This record gives sequence, structure tokens and C-alpha cells, in this order.
Amino acid sequence: MTEFAWPVRVYYEDTDAGGVVYHSNYLNFMERARTEWLRALGFEQDELKDKQGVLFVVRSLNIEYYLPARFNDNLIVTVKMTTLRGASMLLEQDVKKENEPGVLCQGKVKIVSLTTSDFSPCPIPAQIQNLIQI
Amino acid sequence: MTEFAWPVRVYYEDTDAGGVVYHSNYLNFMERARTEWLRALGFEQDELKDKQGVLFVVRSLNIEYYLPARFNDNLIVTVKMTTLRGASMLLEQDVKKENEPGVLCQGKVKIVSLTTSDFSPCPIPAQIQNLIQI
Amino acid sequence: MTEFAWPVRVYYEDTDAGGVVYHSNYLNFMERARTEWLRALGFEQDELKDKQGVLFVVRSLNIEYYLPARFNDNLIVTVKMTTLRGASMLLEQDVKKENEPGVLCQGKVKIVSLTTSDFSPCPIPAQIQNLIQI
Amino acid sequence: MTEFAWPVRVYYEDTDAGGVVYHSNYLNFMERARTEWLRALGFEQDELKDKQGVLFVVRSLNIEYYLPARFNDNLIVTVKMTTLRGASMLLEQDVKKENEPGVLCQGKVKIVSLTTSDFSPCPIPAQIQNLIQI
Repeated sequence: MTEFAWPVRVYYEDTDAGGVVYHSNYLNFMERARTEWLRALGFEQDELKDKQGVLFVVRSLNIEYYLPARFNDNLIVTVKMTTLRGASMLLEQDVKKENEPGVLCQGKVKIVSLTTSDFSPCPIPAQIQNLIQI
Repeated sequence: MTEFAWPVRVYYEDTDAGGVVYHSNYLNFMERARTEWLRALGFEQDELKDKQGVLFVVRSLNIEYYLPARFNDNLIVTVKMTTLRGASMLLEQDVKKENEPGVLCQGKVKIVSLTTSDFSPCPIPAQIQNLIQI
Repeated sequence: MTEFAWPVRVYYEDTDAGGVVYHSNYLNFMERARTEWLRALGFEQDELKDKQGVLFVVRSLNIEYYLPARFNDNLIVTVKMTTLRGASMLLEQDVKKENEPGVLCQGKVKIVSLTTSDFSPCPIPAQIQNLIQI
Repeated sequence: MTEFAWPVRVYYEDTDAGGVVYHSNYLNFMERARTEWLRALGFEQDELKDKQGVLFVVRSLNIEYYLPARFNDNLIVTVKMTTLRGASMLLEQDVKKENEPGVLCQGKVKIVSLTTSDFSPCPIPAQIQNLIQI
């Protein structure tokens, strides 16, 4: 599967008094990229929830912070699926600066598929499985 | 009615690269104080929603910013009701530093009472009206 | 002056348990649009700060909330300068849904120009004044 | 060393349209608890920065999400130091509901000590090392 990439501009709201992006905000950037990755594949999460009764939630994550991002930086956030199981998937996500080689921060995110009715694990819908395992 | 006051500590998450509290975060602090004011009066907003079908939402606000707050500041956020109508109330809210005279920022907030069913205006529940107009 | 417009997608991070965009997050959206408006005019706020010693900060704001935005909505945030004084400007900013007529929320924002050295008011740099009063 | 515990109330700002606390906000809660843990030991991070030229930053983190927190929940966030090295420490942090046994989410956080001058690793100040290894 090819890697998906999504641009994220850093605004004041994302920074802290240390002059850099506040550490938890990278998680927000990664979630924006996952949302856009699903959208690019043809899936809207609100429709998945309302029509198929399926929610994708973060079950665990592992983040390494290497270098800080700052106000006005134009970041690229990637999404690469590394493991697909019935009710979960592992994604690797990098945050880089546009046109610069280094990785600022790297996440491994486990997403689980839950039913909206009782939040129990359920299979990732087949159409999504088919598309993302290519 | 006496003024309600709620302490808010400033953490890194609240600041921006200018070294001060990011301007929209004062709105969050003000909402924390409103939530605690209602709690001090004996009302939990989740119970109001689930049992009485009533939501309080911000209809408009007016904020003046005078002085910045910084990391580690211990702030005091006040709530004073100035006008009570059937389905709305006007609140004045100040943000100060603990043990310092000046006001950092001042808000006038109009809260409306809505039904959870169709988000149409509805009377503020009588028990709340009775308590807050004293 | 023509009105500037900037798209903002609503992600989960922007919403609250009421199912709608949390009220203070519209202020963040408006600031993103102001940053992009200045960028479109050729000004980067980090350069203004580092090279000219000038900061733009929010001095006051007035927001009216009419209709809620929800997860996945594609919003358009506008910027229109209505008054330009030596050290301040008044901006009107609307938040709409893309391809829909109604205004969700409307802000009047007073921005002041401050020196980075001691945060005292200073003239908005002439090149910016020239560009934005056209 | 005994475990430090800090209460955190969940407000609307912390929740998302799924009705639960947004996943990255637990990182903010954990940082509040770390700040208060250092304060309880007698250290203010702004003084460490200004007087000793030392910053504590998150180098990596590992979070497992088990159960959601909701609006109005009163959470307890713990801090337990598990490893102390010269320029870094590993902390374990749990998020629980007050008066309930289960753990909602669990973090392992690696904090590094950096100089404010060039962000290179530096020893954790001796007074802190002495206090936290007891």
C-alpha cells in the first residue's frame, strides 16, 4: 500500500510557551491525517457511524519525539498501514517538515473497530478491508 | 447574588509561542467556572440534559483582553449573573491573578437554555431560576 | 478590499460531547484565517516578530453563535477589514458551511499591533497598512 | 517513592462528539499531574527554566486506552517514577475515576532534561534527583 500524506500548517493555537508545538497536538495532527486517509479511500467516519454503526477509536499509541515543530511550519503527516486484523489495524505515522528530510515525530497507532451500540469490537467493514490491504 | 470564584492553574497546554495564555483558552476557563458555579448551586449539567432535557449553550460573548496570563499563574475566574430572563441569562466573568488586583480579561457571556430534543429555546428550569435570582 | 476566505475542516478534536464544535474553537478557526490572510498579502507573522519587532494580538472580540458546526463539516472562514487605525484594526469574520448560505457564527475582532520589546502599542507596519487599505 | 495523585475534572472542552474525552487530552491531564508532582516536591518549572536553564520535555510516550472518561467525571491522575537516569526519567501514569477501581488509561512517559540554551541533554538538577529517588 502506498503511503498517504496530509499537510498540516502550524498555527499559534498549536504551540506552547516553549516556542514549539505542544506534544499532545501531534496526536491531533495524526488523527487529521487518518481522517483524510479514510476520506481519500472513500469513507466518511460520520457515515460509517450512522449507516454501519461502526466507530474507529485509538486503542494504544506509541510516540517518539525527535525534533520540535514551530509556528508557521508546514508539516506533512503520513499514514501507512502495517498490520490489518479483523477488528483492528496498526498504522505508522510520521510527522516531517515539508521539503526537509528529518522526521520530527513518529507514531505507531492501534485503531480498533467498535460497534456504536455497545462499544464492543467488531470487524472493520469489508469494503474498507479490501481497499486498505491492497 | 454573591460572586462565584473558581481557581484555574495555567499549564503548558494553555500557553502559546508568545509565552502567554492563548486567547481562546480564556473561554475554556470561563466555561469551567460556569460549570462549577452551577455545581455549587447543586446542578450537574449532565443530569439537566439527561433528566430534564435541557442544555445551556453560549449564544454570544464579548471579551476584552487587558493583560496576559503566563505558565504557572494561578488564576481566579469569577461568575456574576447580571440579567436573568426566561430562557437566557447574562453573566459577567473576570479573570484575575490570585492575590493581585488587576483584571486580565473580562467576558460578558449570554447563555441560552435549549431543549435537547430540537435545540429550541426553553425556560431555564425553575429550581435554577429560584436559586440564581437570590 | 475584497473579502478573504479560508477553508477549515472540522475534525473530532474540534467537537465536544454535545456533538458540535466547541464554542472556543471557532476563535482558533478565525485566527487560522487571519494568519492565512496576512500570508496571502505576503506577510509571515514570525518574520514580522523577528525582523520588525511587531506582534499582532487580539485586544477584544465579540462573537455571535447562530448555528452549530459538526464533525466533517467543511467550513469557510472569512476575513474582512472594516476599520484601520494606526496601531489597530477591526476585522469582521464569518464562519459558514461550504456551499450553504447561512452564517454559523460571526466575530468582530480588534487586533492591536504591539512591540515585542515591551508589548506597547506601535504602528502597524506601513507595507501592511498600504496593502490592507486598498 | 510513593505515588503522587492529582484530581482532574472533565469539562466540555475535553470531550469530543463521541461523547467521551478526546484521546490526546489525556496527555494534557498527565502533564498537569507531572507539573503538580514537581510543584509538590518544591520545584516550579518556570524557575528551573529561568534560574537553572533546564527544561523537562517529553521524549517518548506509550499510551494504552482501556475505558473512556466522560463529561463531569472526576479523574485521578497518578505519577510514579520507575527509572531515574542522569538526564532522563521514566514515569508511569494512570488515569482512573475517583472512587472506582478500574484504570481508564495508562501512560509510560520518558522525560528528558534539556538545556534552554541549545536543547542538548543535561543532568536533571541534583536537588530534584535527590528528592525523587527517595
